[in-house]
Amino acid sequence: MSSDLEAFFNPSSVAVAGASSSAMKLGNITLANLMRFDYGGKVFAIHPRAGEIMGVPAYPSLCEVGESVDVAVGVLPRELMLDFALDCADAGVRNIIVCAAGYSDAGPEGAEMQRQLGEVVRSRGMRMMGPNSVGTISTESGFVTSLMSLEPIAPGPISIVAQTGLFAGGFALWMSSTQLFGLCKVACLGNKADVDEVDVLAYLEGDGHTGIIAMYSEGVSRGREFREIASRVSRSKPIVMLKGGRTDLGMSMAASHTGSLAGEDAVYRGAMAQAGVIVVEGIDGLFDSAKALAYCPLPAGPNLGVVSITGAGTVLAADACYRRGLFLPPPSQKASEEAHAGLPDWASLSNPMDIWTATLQGSVEDGYRGILKAFAGQEDMHILLVVFTLVPESEFDGAELLDEIKATHPDKPVLACFLGASEIDRKRWFRSLEERRIPVYDSIERSIDAAWALATYAAYIRGEGRRSP
Amino acid sequence: MSSDLEAFFNPSSVAVAGASSSAMKLGNITLANLMRFDYGGKVFAIHPRAGEIMGVPAYPSLCEVGESVDVAVGVLPRELMLDFALDCADAGVRNIIVCAAGYSDAGPEGAEMQRQLGEVVRSRGMRMMGPNSVGTISTESGFVTSLMSLEPIAPGPISIVAQTGLFAGGFALWMSSTQLFGLCKVACLGNKADVDEVDVLAYLEGDGHTGIIAMYSEGVSRGREFREIASRVSRSKPIVMLKGGRTDLGMSMAASHTGSLAGEDAVYRGAMAQAGVIVVEGIDGLFDSAKALAYCPLPAGPNLGVVSITGAGTVLAADACYRRGLFLPPPSQKASEEAHAGLPDWASLSNPMDIWTATLQGSVEDGYRGILKAFAGQEDMHILLVVFTLVPESEFDGAELLDEIKATHPDKPVLACFLGASEIDRKRWFRSLEERRIPVYDSIERSIDAAWALATYAAYIRGEGRRSP
Repeated sequence: MSSDLEAFFNPSSVAVAGASSSAMKLGNITLANLMRFDYGGKVFAIHPRAGEIMGVPAYPSLCEVGESVDVAVGVLPRELMLDFALDCADAGVRNIIVCAAGYSDAGPEGAEMQRQLGEVVRSRGMRMMGPNSVGTISTESGFVTSLMSLEPIAPGPISIVAQTGLFAGGFALWMSSTQLFGLCKVACLGNKADVDEVDVLAYLEGDGHTGIIAMYSEGVSRGREFREIASRVSRSKPIVMLKGGRTDLGMSMAASHTGSLAGEDAVYRGAMAQAGVIVVEGIDGLFDSAKALAYCPLPAGPNLGVVSITGAGTVLAADACYRRGLFLPPPSQKASEEAHAGLPDWASLSNPMDIWTATLQGSVEDGYRGILKAFAGQEDMHILLVVFTLVPESEFDGAELLDEIKATHPDKPVLACFLGASEIDRKRWFRSLEERRIPVYDSIERSIDAAWALATYAAYIRGEGRRSP
Repeated sequence: MSSDLEAFFNPSSVAVAGASSSAMKLGNITLANLMRFDYGGKVFAIHPRAGEIMGVPAYPSLCEVGESVDVAVGVLPRELMLDFALDCADAGVRNIIVCAAGYSDAGPEGAEMQRQLGEVVRSRGMRMMGPNSVGTISTESGFVTSLMSLEPIAPGPISIVAQTGLFAGGFALWMSSTQLFGLCKVACLGNKADVDEVDVLAYLEGDGHTGIIAMYSEGVSRGREFREIASRVSRSKPIVMLKGGRTDLGMSMAASHTGSLAGEDAVYRGAMAQAGVIVVEGIDGLFDSAKALAYCPLPAGPNLGVVSITGAGTVLAADACYRRGLFLPPPSQKASEEAHAGLPDWASLSNPMDIWTATLQGSVEDGYRGILKAFAGQEDMHILLVVFTLVPESEFDGAELLDEIKATHPDKPVLACFLGASEIDRKRWFRSLEERRIPVYDSIERSIDAAWALATYAAYIRGEGRRSP
């Protein structure tokens, strides 16, 4: 295999310990996920007595499988894990995912057990994900070892690296039931006794399926190595990062009011910016930015053209751009002349533009089209944001229109924002726009945050350094 | 009537100009809304020729109606509005809603027409909402004059005052199709040639149905009067405010980089804080805060107890609390002892608390219950935030549990946050929690923002002044 992490995502064979033939244990969920995602490799169960579990052949130990096993998944109580790891080592299994919790996350006794587990892994030349990992997901191979019952997710370019299991759990279900952007891989690192962010970044750099890397981290232990590898990887694949624990509030409120924390956060942001890592706020920000980077071309600069059917949309967009350090250039002479035919005599083109004046001369669709064409043709409007409010009175095929704009200006990101809609109209418009790779957001601020991520990454790639938030 | 604004929301009779018997004009939408919301008063149409429109009797002018008309809605081209206003005045109609646009929003000619309209209204002792108003909504009377086809919305305590029509349009459809908090009134002020924020605040102060006032404003023209009335109203009804145009970026980017704007914004925030107005970010923040204030009792202080099934939830909550100036007090001796039975020996209670250790001793439900009971019983934990990730493996009746906690501690706000869920589970949990008046949010940051709004308003009411954001 090309990397010693490959078997965590694309193994030819897997053994799962912790499933039962008589009860629904966590290991059974892992087996069910492998089936539900149509994993094409060989699957074995490890069980002291059962000969078969859920149609999968079971063996008392790895050594008795009699075939090569690429990766073993231990969904066992921590008391049984060390023996399981030794069995894996004896059988020549090089990769092990330890889903058991109760290690460094659980007092000194657990920490000692984690140390022992790490020693076995290192001394026998294995690689371990975890302990306290909720598992991995790889949509292209259907290899899914999550401890939570998932549903198939559309393959896509976004890979996620996180200590938390959220992305192999609740958010995986959110993606499969509501999102179109598609997922590539999830690595839940857990306690990081062996494999950490640095290892996974290096792996994803060489992974042909991964286009964008989204990370949630509460602290990178190998800081220097992380910055080095992130600087390299981010040249070819954007890295979006949500950092938890930036204020260090944690347990004690009192200690946090020293004022030193904001400084630390600034240092961290500076280091990440130098490495080309795009630092976002909140899990929403993580997905919003990753989606924009997945769908859109990189803009040639940080300037937006904003077209809105509501005046409030233009005002809130201007506020959000100002806060993010993005610019709204005035319309050029040429753009103004182009848009003129669609406007009443007394009206003039502005940026952001409230299209209601344009709808006085024609339909809502014509209003959007005239202004959007003028903005798209203006060279220094690098990103277009189109704000809709979905009421029956302004119904038209917005996706078709934006697709038309994209086709004539394939170099410009086009983002859409909905300010208010019935549930059914929102779903319909969301699907038709996102199927055409136009990212949709439900607030002006989130749209502008996503535009900022695009502009920031584009500036890094052009070598201008990163725009401050 | 108790106020000269009452007829904008609860008239006994209304006349609509701008509907047609042969085409679907904007006035027809208004008539259809009145029917769809079951408005119980008398409805007349004003039309030069038609004897009846959509079953509503039509007259060529107000004077010919022959009955008293409380409010007239003009959905006419601006060229016809002045004559319509004069007809209203002659017929003794005291209130007029002008939905036509094209006034001060549309060049000098429009501004002059607005001046003339205002003069008629003032000289004849009338009150006018608009021009450029999208209409009003009053759920208790079913009086809905929006220009957009709406669907019935559950009555509730939240009234909305805004220049923009968004809340009588797209967001009204959003409320009716997805939200349970309920709406009282919407006033779309438009160009504010007569009725403005000060008038509507004074009206809503005396409105028995309004419990919370949510405002979107791009600038209050009568600043001193606004602060006076807001100071008084906010003693009895919370006012939540989203201010658009705070950065003054608007048209010209260049002029906005003088650095003076942040100062102006700080002055504005200070003035609003003194008046007890809760200043929020984004339309999400407006609804999130208003919902929390609608559902929850006022907390006795700014301290949170956070219980989460995911470690990331505890870390992100600590970060968000720090940024908002909210506190996470350590668990008391008593709380720790109470929770002890549900925890492994090596584990101890903390705040925020990751309940996974508690689930080692029992079910997920027991884990939440044990910690929540301990936190709820601790006097200096004033607000409880419960973080869920909705995976099938942790399914239980969360609403029933939180209801149990609320019943024993009715003085404490209980908020819920979902970190990841399938669409169907999210909807199910959302409904069951919100039916019990537990506000639900889809991100840690939005939950904490809502908790901050509760704590801020409570502090104002206690006379401590307002916490900084």
